[in-house]
Amino acid sequence: MSMSGDKIYKPKPVSGFPEWLPEVRLVEQQWLDHIRRVFESYGFCSIETPSVEELDVIAAKGEVDKEIYVLERLHADPADKKEARLALHFDQTVPLARYVAQHFNGLVFPFKRYQMQRVWRGERPQAGRFREFTQCDIDVINVDNLPLHFDAEMPAIIWEVLSSLPGMENEKIQLRISNRKIMYGYLQALGINAPDLITNIIRAADKLEKIGREEALRQIMDYVKDAKFEVTYHTDLNKQIGLFLAVASYRYKNAMELVVGTDEPLSGLGTLTKLHPELKNNELFKQGMTELTFVMDQLSHLPQNTVVADLSIVRGLDYYTGTVYETVFVDDPGYGSICSGGRYDDLASSYINKKLPGVGISIGFSRLFARLHEQGKLPVKSKSPADILMVLPSEERRALAAQTAATLRKRGFNVEMYHAPKKTGDQIKFADRKGIPYVWFPPFEDGKDHEVKCMGSGTQQKADPAEWNLDEKK
Amino acid sequence: MSMSGDKIYKPKPVSGFPEWLPEVRLVEQQWLDHIRRVFESYGFCSIETPSVEELDVIAAKGEVDKEIYVLERLHADPADKKEARLALHFDQTVPLARYVAQHFNGLVFPFKRYQMQRVWRGERPQAGRFREFTQCDIDVINVDNLPLHFDAEMPAIIWEVLSSLPGMENEKIQLRISNRKIMYGYLQALGINAPDLITNIIRAADKLEKIGREEALRQIMDYVKDAKFEVTYHTDLNKQIGLFLAVASYRYKNAMELVVGTDEPLSGLGTLTKLHPELKNNELFKQGMTELTFVMDQLSHLPQNTVVADLSIVRGLDYYTGTVYETVFVDDPGYGSICSGGRYDDLASSYINKKLPGVGISIGFSRLFARLHEQGKLPVKSKSPADILMVLPSEERRALAAQTAATLRKRGFNVEMYHAPKKTGDQIKFADRKGIPYVWFPPFEDGKDHEVKCMGSGTQQKADPAEWNLDEKK
Repeated sequence: MSMSGDKIYKPKPVSGFPEWLPEVRLVEQQWLDHIRRVFESYGFCSIETPSVEELDVIAAKGEVDKEIYVLERLHADPADKKEARLALHFDQTVPLARYVAQHFNGLVFPFKRYQMQRVWRGERPQAGRFREFTQCDIDVINVDNLPLHFDAEMPAIIWEVLSSLPGMENEKIQLRISNRKIMYGYLQALGINAPDLITNIIRAADKLEKIGREEALRQIMDYVKDAKFEVTYHTDLNKQIGLFLAVASYRYKNAMELVVGTDEPLSGLGTLTKLHPELKNNELFKQGMTELTFVMDQLSHLPQNTVVADLSIVRGLDYYTGTVYETVFVDDPGYGSICSGGRYDDLASSYINKKLPGVGISIGFSRLFARLHEQGKLPVKSKSPADILMVLPSEERRALAAQTAATLRKRGFNVEMYHAPKKTGDQIKFADRKGIPYVWFPPFEDGKDHEVKCMGSGTQQKADPAEWNLDEKK
Repeated sequence: MSMSGDKIYKPKPVSGFPEWLPEVRLVEQQWLDHIRRVFESYGFCSIETPSVEELDVIAAKGEVDKEIYVLERLHADPADKKEARLALHFDQTVPLARYVAQHFNGLVFPFKRYQMQRVWRGERPQAGRFREFTQCDIDVINVDNLPLHFDAEMPAIIWEVLSSLPGMENEKIQLRISNRKIMYGYLQALGINAPDLITNIIRAADKLEKIGREEALRQIMDYVKDAKFEVTYHTDLNKQIGLFLAVASYRYKNAMELVVGTDEPLSGLGTLTKLHPELKNNELFKQGMTELTFVMDQLSHLPQNTVVADLSIVRGLDYYTGTVYETVFVDDPGYGSICSGGRYDDLASSYINKKLPGVGISIGFSRLFARLHEQGKLPVKSKSPADILMVLPSEERRALAAQTAATLRKRGFNVEMYHAPKKTGDQIKFADRKGIPYVWFPPFEDGKDHEVKCMGSGTQQKADPAEWNLDEKK
């Protein structure tokens, strides 16, 4: 395992662990700063949690089927056995739940927090799958009750974030919203209550866009047959499920469309209630319908088609209980959701004897960023955060150059000093290679002026380090 | 291991993995932003590397004696055996070396980078020891040669960073600098070349401040005896080592003191050369002396006593070859170094067939931050990044409140909306508990004005959301 001093160990990328060159990292920082700025503008506070949790904490919700990395000390000793095993977190929701329970008395509720950290999933290496990636989450947690307005605030914030990320301006994205109570209530009204069967139906509905209505219906009816489902107060289950899938196949632009339906004959929640009269008595269905309508109504100020109601959204087997969100590229929905979340009734019941409902949403930062990078859409420009390269005229004038750099730094500019009194042409070339936009020439002789060269325009003019501004470029 | 849904798993802190409440995290963000801003103002670019490296990479420098965490998938399968083992990085220097070798052709040299990430050391749990912590590193790497000016730039930047961190303004800190060539050269001149003996002498010198000159001398002479050291061209080893320890016991305020000595009879490099004439012929000693003098000279613009030359600084068994740095609290040097580093001749020889000298320094961020926090010295104020709490007058006026909040956000303010139309007193109390400095009242009736209350002064006055500014507080 260990290597001799002479042997060269040629490094190569580790599959699934992304790493960027400085010019790409510079854009990544812009993205992270932008996301943070928007989150904070809505009053979300930052928290960070350790990279690890005790395995018991991670396992408390029965989520151990995820591909979890546990830590082992290379030189473990027997005393370690006494300690709890530590595992890298695979999301930021489990750590949030633990954090809220542990620090309950130190927090003010509703607790609005954002969290932008790395998470780890020990997947088998394969192209396009990350094993370490950054997520940017916002969640609001309250005690006992959480107003539904927060369910509408989430997509509004996310829309603001995503639509103004550098390089994302021309991407068409769509937030798709549903409410799980609608599907659960509908199945309840049909008399379907067996958990396994519900799970299988949700799985099929989840794939609706990919496999189409007919195939989804066929799969569901197969599950129904397997489950030896007893017909209760309806005789035409096939038709009823088909109807739901029809309604779930539309994307409703606003609350009105969602309730009343569109030009298509089988669309809108109204269609369901009309054709299946029992629904009027199903509380869960009605509640889901009211909630989703409310959320859509609150989002009516966003540009058309950016937020739609889509009843096929269920977020797989996650722990959501009401509102659910997904976000897709309109031109490439098959890429999957880049930002997802939803409402949960009870965040931390595994850790604390309080009811803590919450709603949250998570940007899959690394996947989104890597995609834009691959497509050459990021505004990658400079290899350096420097605004100015300070030319070093000669060893004698180093102090003058350093002093000029210090003056400009005090005024808020980032200034890199060139390190050796090489030919001016070499120093300019260095600025060019790094993408530094201005080159500053301190006086090469006593009595001369400072000058600054704009690399973009090529112009060079006199400048005073105490007064010069970026505006002077032209 | 897994828990039933009903059982409560009471979470507790994991020893060595720090975590902060939102109000402390807010200050931590200010610290990180500040450090980043200073680093960037000198033209350092950011990089981040994966949290893991292949174990072979980490082991390439023979550093496996560190307490390394390796990753294991909880549900590993036999195919995993084919993959390289992954380990969490324990510093940012090994990843930097690997990064520079791997991306050599994509970088511009001298490569100035900063890196602010978490690192992990699988220490046994004990008070005050972190197993996960953040380091803030700057390094400059060049090909073949790296000008010595960079050795002086590092402490200047670090001084600027540390002396202006929020809460650090009144802390007396001191950067201590030495050059390893001086001690190595001196030992060489004494004829001491055996690696083991040198290692033991360095260890003793490293403890000089703690154990005192007499004890250090005693330990070293014991090692010399054990090593059956052959006397070559000197007969009074005891005196010569004692002399070195005397010189190494001073802290020289500037280059002049370092060379000429202070008022004390046995101080200054001049003393050594006078009393031990062979030194004039030792290239290593002379080089170290010249380099350290140069660095001290370049730092003469910093406040007196903030940077001193201290020949007892050797940085243990690390890989430094020239300049070395430590930073201590003057009132509590026993706390150890909060910021250390040095120059290395050849960063990445294990990974690439190029000579890449570098110099770097690393702030032990978490240790420093946790210390100031424990001592109650951090400016902890608010639990929220919000500047303004927007009062919700009534459900009917929610749209107006939301619109006012949006106007203020566009103008750069962070605005949290209160979530329910509760009594005004309750809403003000909420702002108070969160430490939000301003409370905004949209008109409660048509025709009335907006008003804003400054929580600090208690004053409340009319305000226009399109024009109001924080300056209006008073």
